[in-house]
Amino acid sequence: MSLLTHPLIKNGWFKEVNNESFPGQAFSLRVSKILYAEKSKYQDVLVFKSTDFGNVLVLDGIIQCTERDEFAYQEMITHVAMFAHGNAKKVLIIGGGDGGVLREVVKHPSVETATLVEIDDMVIRIAKKYLPNMSCSFENDKVNVVLTDGFKFLKQVAMDSGRYDVIITDSSDPEGPAEAFFQKDYFQLLYNALAPNGVVISMASENIWLNINKLGHLRKVANEVFPVAKISNCTIPTYTSGQIALLCCSKDPQLDVSKPSRALPRDQEIKLFKYYNSQIHQASFILPTWADQIIYERAGC
Amino acid sequence: MSLLTHPLIKNGWFKEVNNESFPGQAFSLRVSKILYAEKSKYQDVLVFKSTDFGNVLVLDGIIQCTERDEFAYQEMITHVAMFAHGNAKKVLIIGGGDGGVLREVVKHPSVETATLVEIDDMVIRIAKKYLPNMSCSFENDKVNVVLTDGFKFLKQVAMDSGRYDVIITDSSDPEGPAEAFFQKDYFQLLYNALAPNGVVISMASENIWLNINKLGHLRKVANEVFPVAKISNCTIPTYTSGQIALLCCSKDPQLDVSKPSRALPRDQEIKLFKYYNSQIHQASFILPTWADQIIYERAGC
Repeated sequence: MSLLTHPLIKNGWFKEVNNESFPGQAFSLRVSKILYAEKSKYQDVLVFKSTDFGNVLVLDGIIQCTERDEFAYQEMITHVAMFAHGNAKKVLIIGGGDGGVLREVVKHPSVETATLVEIDDMVIRIAKKYLPNMSCSFENDKVNVVLTDGFKFLKQVAMDSGRYDVIITDSSDPEGPAEAFFQKDYFQLLYNALAPNGVVISMASENIWLNINKLGHLRKVANEVFPVAKISNCTIPTYTSGQIALLCCSKDPQLDVSKPSRALPRDQEIKLFKYYNSQIHQASFILPTWADQIIYERAGC
Repeated sequence: MSLLTHPLIKNGWFKEVNNESFPGQAFSLRVSKILYAEKSKYQDVLVFKSTDFGNVLVLDGIIQCTERDEFAYQEMITHVAMFAHGNAKKVLIIGGGDGGVLREVVKHPSVETATLVEIDDMVIRIAKKYLPNMSCSFENDKVNVVLTDGFKFLKQVAMDSGRYDVIITDSSDPEGPAEAFFQKDYFQLLYNALAPNGVVISMASENIWLNINKLGHLRKVANEVFPVAKISNCTIPTYTSGQIALLCCSKDPQLDVSKPSRALPRDQEIKLFKYYNSQIHQASFILPTWADQIIYERAGC
């Protein structure tokens, strides 16, 4: 058996460094073993076992998830949207090939169908093999997997508008196959594919500490399409700056996505979720003063 | 002029790595220029100019502050305690030789005296030279600097108990000169030195993602002395995991430190603070489900 190598792993450490996305800083994880290293049709795919964060999936050099902290992101991107809506029956996931969002979506008894649209089937295969706790819901009866480009899929869906209650865009960063998911056209497609009281949530790629003007711009673009567009902040140590912003939008101008429409009793929350609860749902939308000023373009900033 | 070097700076990057405190992960900053590298009587002191985070102060290999994000920590450790109290006149800072907390404390018109007790005068000198925006309040008339060990100082103060309204422990990590600040004896000294409605806040060294059991233990120890002991979470990208926990305690059992006793009008908050506001004060005490269970030892965890 040949020993796998990867250019970003040197002297037993994986170093995440990108002079355009996050210049002058780098995050490293110690590698126990490289499990997989291939180029798919769309991206560079790397999986390694880390010494302290479990298995790690890396796409195009950027950490997508580690077994130790993935629950934070998966739970927040899913349940903030699901509880903001309150009774989602038809759910669409764009991206999310690792299965983590799917695992969270099917925890909601209201869900009748969960459709996952992933461009790169290598991500799904890799997750099934190396991230079993994330990919555990692909066989669920409510789940439908479509292997195609999310943008194209939504264009087709838009013909038959008003279809989904919640749409979750769990993409990689805009540099690469996910580029189109950060444009106004995409938000318009999401809008068209939603039921009248529908909610969307997207991985915003940036965070308030990294490139806040870009994040503010993204929210503004979404707000040109959706009457409600707010930023939620999720802590997760293996993402750059230890956090990731989520952009949550509602088609109904009366629906404040920062408040759950429905909350479970605390004992249920404890059973079902490690990170999410109805209080942190609301707290995640409260931003530090400077960030709030820039993101919502308030006077005085 | 000799070219400065430091063993943690290689190929133009400073790498923060500590196999005991945060095994298997490392954070790096690109170095523009080493400004200062000496061993003081107490610790290894390094200051460098980074390419993207301004000047950076490093003690014993651990990042203490960068000019880009220091305001988050300085504002939260100061204003959470100050607004929980609501009308602090006498304030004590243990550590904090960089001056950042002092800068924030003197923003409160209620403050009559702010005493800063720092063991290592090299930190103050370095801050005055390389961190001018942090060390700008040492000359303020209300400020009194005492160069001694904080633990010893509090022992003397305890003779004359009930002296301070707010005490802020802005120390380095427990490995090194700050070790004593993480023990029950220290919390007892703080308790004795406080006025009856006094509030203390401490840098907890850990965060919920890093060593949550140790953090829970620290809170428990503090809670054996103080009737109220709660954890606030502050995001700051250059600290490990992108965040730091603050431990805030009250001598008055009726005072819920997670709620400000006093809030400024929003326009005042915007003028005075970049990070702190009365909403984020409260939101910072809301923890993810699993962290809340462990830290407060609630049933079912």
